[in-house]
Amino acid sequence: MEVEDLRLKIRDIPDFPSKGIVFRDLTTLLKDGESLKVMGEALTDLYRDKGVTKVVGIESRGFIGGSIMAYNLGCGFVPARKPGKLPSVTIKKAYAKEYGVDTIELHSDAINENDVVLIHDDLLATGGTIRACYDLVMSMNPKKVYVNFVVELTDLNGRSVLPDECEVTSLLKY
Amino acid sequence: MEVEDLRLKIRDIPDFPSKGIVFRDLTTLLKDGESLKVMGEALTDLYRDKGVTKVVGIESRGFIGGSIMAYNLGCGFVPARKPGKLPSVTIKKAYAKEYGVDTIELHSDAINENDVVLIHDDLLATGGTIRACYDLVMSMNPKKVYVNFVVELTDLNGRSVLPDECEVTSLLKY
Repeated sequence: MEVEDLRLKIRDIPDFPSKGIVFRDLTTLLKDGESLKVMGEALTDLYRDKGVTKVVGIESRGFIGGSIMAYNLGCGFVPARKPGKLPSVTIKKAYAKEYGVDTIELHSDAINENDVVLIHDDLLATGGTIRACYDLVMSMNPKKVYVNFVVELTDLNGRSVLPDECEVTSLLKY
Repeated sequence: MEVEDLRLKIRDIPDFPSKGIVFRDLTTLLKDGESLKVMGEALTDLYRDKGVTKVVGIESRGFIGGSIMAYNLGCGFVPARKPGKLPSVTIKKAYAKEYGVDTIELHSDAINENDVVLIHDDLLATGGTIRACYDLVMSMNPKKVYVNFVVELTDLNGRSVLPDECEVTSLLKY
């Protein structure tokens, strides 16, 4: 199985979470052992020689690929969570969503200035969440920050919300 | 590093999420690359010869160890999620929490009668969530269901909510 074959395992769900949106459902890919293996290896291969020390996974679906990458790379995993879930001292950032405002949090001691950070989420759409997470991570002054997704919806141009110097990769573009 | 050394990486947070509770914070373990590797290998070793075909991870923290185990075992990963998050047809079960009621959902096509299922969560406390998830998985008639945690709080006797025939393991008992 090749990376491009993973497309066949993604399920399109019309009108989810709201009318007019076609949701790219990765659960049908994840539940297939061979596909999960190919996805995990391909994601990891993108960052084998980058000196990554921490992978930040964005709650909840970013925990899946993010933890597999951290494990494979031998580096730490850091959860970026919804408000009120992390038990120790946090930094947080609010950002606009389609309806209302959301907030993302990191533990204040999760990242330091010696870290090379890879932020991972399953899907890049309009980019609001990744921008908030990128800003939070940058506020901790790491050496370098990479950003990665399994799926990128290129029509929505989510990459444009990140600064040009930020290196972004995705496994499958739609 | 040995499995028992992982205890040194777990942070105790007094009075979280409420007064009188000592929260076992695994984020300090997860962010250390060597500890994450030891945790992931030790969890996987418990299930190498069991013929597991699907690992069910319980949202959100169960996604971390669960996806690493699924990847290592070469089997599929299935997210058990909070209500309204899964985009296709689901089955769901409500269960009592300390304050109010919570609900857990699985995609209806996530598991079938040929599957050997391993349900994973990071921590076993009173067992309400795992019992609801176990019942949901059992309703799909898999061949066998195993249950696993990183940390088990033995004083709370959460194992007692599961039937005797269910094999439960945990990496670290407190």
